[in-house]
This record gives sequence, C-alpha cells and structure tokens, in this order.
Amino acid sequence: MSPVRVEEEQPTCLLYRDLHGKKPETVVEARGSYVFLDDGRKILDACAGAAVASIGHGDQRVIQAVASQMTTLSYHHTSRLTNPAAERLGQMLVGNRPGGLSHAIFLSSGSEANESAIKLARQFFVEKGETDRVHIISRNNSYHGNSIGCVSLTGIPSRRRHFEPILMQHTSRVSPCYPYRYKTDGETDETYAQRLGDELEQEILRVGPGRVAAFFAETVGGAAAGNLTPVPGYFQAIRRVCDKYGVLLVLDEIMCGMGRTGKMHAWEWEAVLMQQHVVDGLKRGSGAFANGQTFQCHPAAAAAGVAVLSIFESDDVVAVCAKRGAELHRSLIESLGDHPNVGEIRGRGLFLSIEFVKDKNTKATFSQGLPLASMLDNAIFDRGVSVYSGFGKGTADGVVGDHILFSPPLNISSSEIEELVKAVKEGVDEVFSRDEVQRELVV
Amino acid sequence: MSPVRVEEEQPTCLLYRDLHGKKPETVVEARGSYVFLDDGRKILDACAGAAVASIGHGDQRVIQAVASQMTTLSYHHTSRLTNPAAERLGQMLVGNRPGGLSHAIFLSSGSEANESAIKLARQFFVEKGETDRVHIISRNNSYHGNSIGCVSLTGIPSRRRHFEPILMQHTSRVSPCYPYRYKTDGETDETYAQRLGDELEQEILRVGPGRVAAFFAETVGGAAAGNLTPVPGYFQAIRRVCDKYGVLLVLDEIMCGMGRTGKMHAWEWEAVLMQQHVVDGLKRGSGAFANGQTFQCHPAAAAAGVAVLSIFESDDVVAVCAKRGAELHRSLIESLGDHPNVGEIRGRGLFLSIEFVKDKNTKATFSQGLPLASMLDNAIFDRGVSVYSGFGKGTADGVVGDHILFSPPLNISSSEIEELVKAVKEGVDEVFSRDEVQRELVV
Repeated sequence: MSPVRVEEEQPTCLLYRDLHGKKPETVVEARGSYVFLDDGRKILDACAGAAVASIGHGDQRVIQAVASQMTTLSYHHTSRLTNPAAERLGQMLVGNRPGGLSHAIFLSSGSEANESAIKLARQFFVEKGETDRVHIISRNNSYHGNSIGCVSLTGIPSRRRHFEPILMQHTSRVSPCYPYRYKTDGETDETYAQRLGDELEQEILRVGPGRVAAFFAETVGGAAAGNLTPVPGYFQAIRRVCDKYGVLLVLDEIMCGMGRTGKMHAWEWEAVLMQQHVVDGLKRGSGAFANGQTFQCHPAAAAAGVAVLSIFESDDVVAVCAKRGAELHRSLIESLGDHPNVGEIRGRGLFLSIEFVKDKNTKATFSQGLPLASMLDNAIFDRGVSVYSGFGKGTADGVVGDHILFSPPLNISSSEIEELVKAVKEGVDEVFSRDEVQRELVV
Repeated sequence: MSPVRVEEEQPTCLLYRDLHGKKPETVVEARGSYVFLDDGRKILDACAGAAVASIGHGDQRVIQAVASQMTTLSYHHTSRLTNPAAERLGQMLVGNRPGGLSHAIFLSSGSEANESAIKLARQFFVEKGETDRVHIISRNNSYHGNSIGCVSLTGIPSRRRHFEPILMQHTSRVSPCYPYRYKTDGETDETYAQRLGDELEQEILRVGPGRVAAFFAETVGGAAAGNLTPVPGYFQAIRRVCDKYGVLLVLDEIMCGMGRTGKMHAWEWEAVLMQQHVVDGLKRGSGAFANGQTFQCHPAAAAAGVAVLSIFESDDVVAVCAKRGAELHRSLIESLGDHPNVGEIRGRGLFLSIEFVKDKNTKATFSQGLPLASMLDNAIFDRGVSVYSGFGKGTADGVVGDHILFSPPLNISSSEIEELVKAVKEGVDEVFSRDEVQRELVV
C-alpha cells in the first residue's frame, strides 16, 4: 500500500487542538530537515516535531530497520517474554551505566514515562516501609506531560486550571532556575543557586521531611518557559538538599536529553551523581514494579531506537549537534542580540529559545492579550521555517511573557541554520513593525 | 539494517516486570498466529499481545504501509499541522458516525486514551459551568490502565495498593455486571440489571448528583475478571441512570473493541445510544481541549491503522472473527464445559475467558496462595499456546478467583483453534492432576 494521500475536502473527524480556529494546514511529506505542505510549500523544520525527530525525517536506515523488525517480530506483550530489540536498546542506552543509570523501561510517550517515574518513586518508598512519602515537589514554569499525574506536576496555570480538583493532591511547586528574570542584582550564580536550594529545603520542611518522595525537574527547561538553563551550582545544591532528606531527584529529559544539548544526557553538564539504589529497593521488597504498559518495549519501536542510536554513533550526531548548536546560538545572537525586544537567547546545543520583552532594562512583558509568540511563529512559518511556540505565552510566570523555541534535527546543516536565522530575523522584524505591537511599546 | 538478533548473554538493562523470577524467555519471530522463541519453540499466540495484534503478525500489507508512510512523512507534531494519514483513519473510524460518534483523537496507548477521556469529561463540565462535577465512578473488577488517572479508576486492589494516597481523590466504584458470581438465585437478567442500575443511582445520590462527571465501564470486561459479559438490559439501565443525572457514560473498549467481539464496536451488542454533544460543549466554551500528546495522530501509526482497517474490509475480518469466535466458544464448552473445576466459559467473539472454581455448586474459589491461573498459563504455554493470565488471579473480587483469557488474532484459522483447544485441555487436565491442586479440592 502506498502512503496515505490527501483526500478531497471532507469535514474532519479529528478533534483538533483548536476547535474554533481555521482547519490546520496539511503536511504531506518530510525529508531531512524539511517538511512539505499540500500547497507545495517547503518548510525548514526547526522544531523537529516537539524536539523528537532527532536525525530529521525519512532516514532509510531507520525505516528499513523498522520494516525489517516488523517482518521478523512486530510485537509481543512483556508479561512473559522479552525481545532482542528492546534488550539491545537497553544495552546501548545504559549498558555502560552512564552516571550510575542501570535499567530502562521503554514506553510510548513522555507522559507515560513520567507517570511511571511517579509510580516508581512512590513504590520505592512503600517497599522501604516509608509509606508516608506521598508528596512530590516540582517547579513553576515546568511541563511534564498531559496525563493526570503529569499535569499534577506541571507548573503552567493554563494547563492545570480545568483539572485542579481532579489532580493529585500531594504536590507543590518551587521556583525554577531562571536567572534572566529572577536572579537579583546582588546575587552571584553561586548565591542564586544556594537560594533556590534553600527554597527547596524550606518546602520539604514545610511539607514534612518524611512525607516527600521526589523532586521532579527538567534538566534544561523545555517548552514551558523556553529553555531555562541552570546556573552553575544549581543542581549540585538541589542534589545536596534531596540527599539530606532522602528525597529522590527525578530529571525529566524528555525534551532536553538524547544528544540535544550537545551531550548525550543533559545532566552531563551538571555532573549530578545518579543513584542506582532504586531497583535494589524494589528487589528487596515485593520484587515487581506495579506498572506495565501494553506497548512497553515494543520491538518495532525499539528497533527504530537501535537504528537511531547506531546512526548517532556512525554519524557522530551528538558532536555534530554540539557544533551546530554553537553556530545557531552565535548566529541568533549576531542577528538578533541587539534587537530592542530580545531579552535573552538561551539554552544548550540545539535546544535554544529567544525570550521577548517590551523593555530590555525593566524586562517588562507584553500584555496577556497580545499573542506575540504565536504571531512570531506564524510570521516565521510564512517565511518557510517551523519553530515551536505551542507554549510560547506565559514564559515569565505561566501567564505573561513570550518566547519561541528552536529544536531542529541534531544533524541540521550549517546552510540550513543560515536559512533558519534569516527567516527568524525577517519574521521578528516584521512582527515588531506592526501597529498592534508598536502600540504596546509606546505605552 | 537487519532486525535485531539475539546477543550473547549479558545482564539485562530492562526493568522486567518480575525482578525476582528467572529471566523471561525471548521471543524472536512472529508470523500469522504464531510466535517463535529463541530456543526454536513455536507458540500459538492465543492472546495477540494484550488483545492488540488483531490480524496476527507480519502482514506485509501493514508493514509496507508503515514503511511507505515513514518514507513520505514519518512525523510532525499536531500543534499547527494535520496529516492525511490521521485524517483518513478518522474518516474510516467515525466518518459514518457509528452510534453518533463524530470525532477521534489518536493516542499512543490505552492509558493515554483513558487519561484523555477523564480530562475531556472534566473539561466538558467546566465549559458548561458545572464546575462541581469532579467525581468519577467506575466498577470493581475493572482495569483501565496504569497511569495515575487510570489506576484511580481501576478496580483491582493489587494495582492500587502502593499508590492509594497519590491517586485522584474523587473516585468510587460500584459492582460490575458479573452474573456468574453475583446474580442471585431469585433474580432474572432484568431484575439483576435493574439492581445494578439502582446501585449506580444510589452511588450518584451519595456523592451528590451535581458532583459526578462520568461513569467509566468496559463494555465487555477485559483482563481484570475475565471477559465479564453484560446481561441484556444492563447497559440500558446504566444509560438511563447516567442520563437522569447528566453523567457522561464512557465505554472503555481498549480490549473489547475494534472487531474483537465479532462486531466492530462492543457497544453494538447493547444498542447504547451514543451522544454527540461533547464536542459541541467544548466548542461553545473555550474551544480547545486542554490536552495534546507529542505523538498524537502519528502519521506512521495512523498509516498502520488505515492498512489494518483496509484489511478488515478486504478480508472481512470482523465477520471471520464472529465465526471463529463461535467455533472457539463451542469447542471450549465441548472440551472443558463438563470439567468439575470449570465454572464458566464466557465472553463474546474472540474475547473469551474460562473461570475456574473449587466447586461448581458453591462457586468456591481456590486459596489466595495458589497461583492457579499462572500455573495454567505455564502448562498451556509448555504445550505451545500463549494465553493471557497476567491478571488471572483475583477474578472474583480482586483478590481470589482464577481465570485465563483468550484473545487470539481475529483471523485465526479453524485448525489453529483446534490446536489451541487441545493444548488448553491438556494443560488444564495436567494442572488439576497435581498434588498441590488436588489437596485444595479434598479440603
């Protein structure tokens, strides 16, 4: 059978994300760093989906690996049997015990992964007899997924508001590490990191130190506030506080991990010591993690993972990412660093954001009513580049503030980066020339 | 790249479901209704994973559709763009509005689907201004998934116990429709259905009628208690009560849907009238369902779905399933119906279970300490057939009771069914001849 082609116009049967807006445009093809729309437009994919298409689109090595695996063994559930593809992927990821990491479970999405991490943290303490540990602390301006457990941790008011009464009740949030906006004039990186460590400690003491199971944080912040990048010393301070109170530190690297920051794991920038005692804790207890998803360790998905990691090695993808990331960062700073409304260009590797402000000195944000991030996204898309602004409003505090995020394929070329930056600069300039934006600047 | 082959023995990096037991056996190939282990054994797949490999394994029409779609368009996120494969799959599933169903969201797992249903039900009432509707009622002996929201609804004590304090607080459970065990001698199907409808009504009144958002039920029960099959009139009674109090009825057909009962949707057996007002409710409100998963509407997955549904049509798969299901049901009754420890053989289509009892008259269960379902599963597996007993203990009340479940590919052949039943009969006979089982029967 051939790939599914566009059909003549019919009312959609999909529940689109926006029920009022116009029908979304249709993407029909993707190759390398580009996607193609049904009207013939060619768009540079500077978001790689939501930072997931790490080696771009349509690599035949991956496609053939999936087809070959599906022909040999497409699927079996994991209650009784294991499969070589998942075993191999496990070896490739944690066989050399990076930072002490020893075991993996392969799930279908970031939400499923965080749900499992929540349950694993809880069960770990139940097995140890510390059954009062029910509370999880996360951070404001964070995103951990869209299922009930994940929304319970997420620090974005608009994602929580409909659901507040049905979320997990034992959660709370502390400040993220967001130096651009919240590090005070008198603070060094060191004293700011210490202040955030102290804030976490105070929160643990407020909840009751024997009641906190885990602290969840994105190592480099993702979409919620645009690549919040920790100051030196931040995660060391967090690690110390967690260790002091026996709280598990869970690093969510769903967006920032797997090479995207120019290192395989984003925590490698921090030298956060990993712990290998969690599996042992379960082994000493009931001996079974009370979880299990139907598509866990899916052979075809694992085969895709094995193929991608093989390409990481053969094509030296993480090193390429580090290099291109530096190019993109430098080029954005050269083109837009002096723009009066560019507050900060931040991030690591090919995981970068621009935060926009009304005033560089006061860092004042645009009004809640002006959908600036979305306007920028559209203007840049019209110039042939797809960036990620799905969460672009609410950067500063979950309500106001605007950013756009770049997470292109890790093997994007230098000339594609030039094309990207050109479209972004033109889009930014055009949007900031509009009356509705200028009006806010004058006020 | 070729499919991943078995490697020489290394310590696994996967967190297996059982951390104490021996390493799981390794499945290396699958074709049609069979899977093949690394030691050369050929096993008839009578569970199709967890009832998901609907047309068996390795159908090249599906594999080529996936490979072709991945070559053309492997992935793009849905924030801005839609794709033809997901659109087509939506048309195929609900384009003709079966029972009034009008819209679909394609997610990565049953857990993600139920999480979305929970959030959709909640947001629907928030948009209507009925913000007090926070409570969800589900049923005992039910399974809805393994994430926090899904475990909150699941009625299996062992799946809940570690996590009780971190689950959603506004949930409760009523009795399932389980006539074999809970319909009393004096009751007709009609009065039993009415009693269960009354129980739901009482629970709604206890919680407060303006506080209940939804009632979740598996149309035909899945793994939790072995294919609990509703009596005539049950879902009509449930529908009436839900309508009376404005409670949404959510039917979880993750296991029992998509042809497996011999009808496309399991609710077609019930004539439960569907509702199309939910999307309208959102449209009148904020106009956006506050959800969204990265891999939502994944083109390659949608292409697989389109291919499978095309095969459903070209090969008349649902009709085949109905026919083979009747054969399997009849054959199990002929071979095992008179066995002194076979309490009930139940289910619909190719979605069948056998519940085992110590005594057919009293329906007494085996002791909690005897892992009967698992012993049966192993004995049958040793005879070359893989059945589903992952939940096989706890059939009667979530703690005791034993069943094994059959959910083979919908296009299993008649001779494969004979092979299946022969292995099951031999396995059952052998297990019930063992001393440890006989001892319980004597007591």
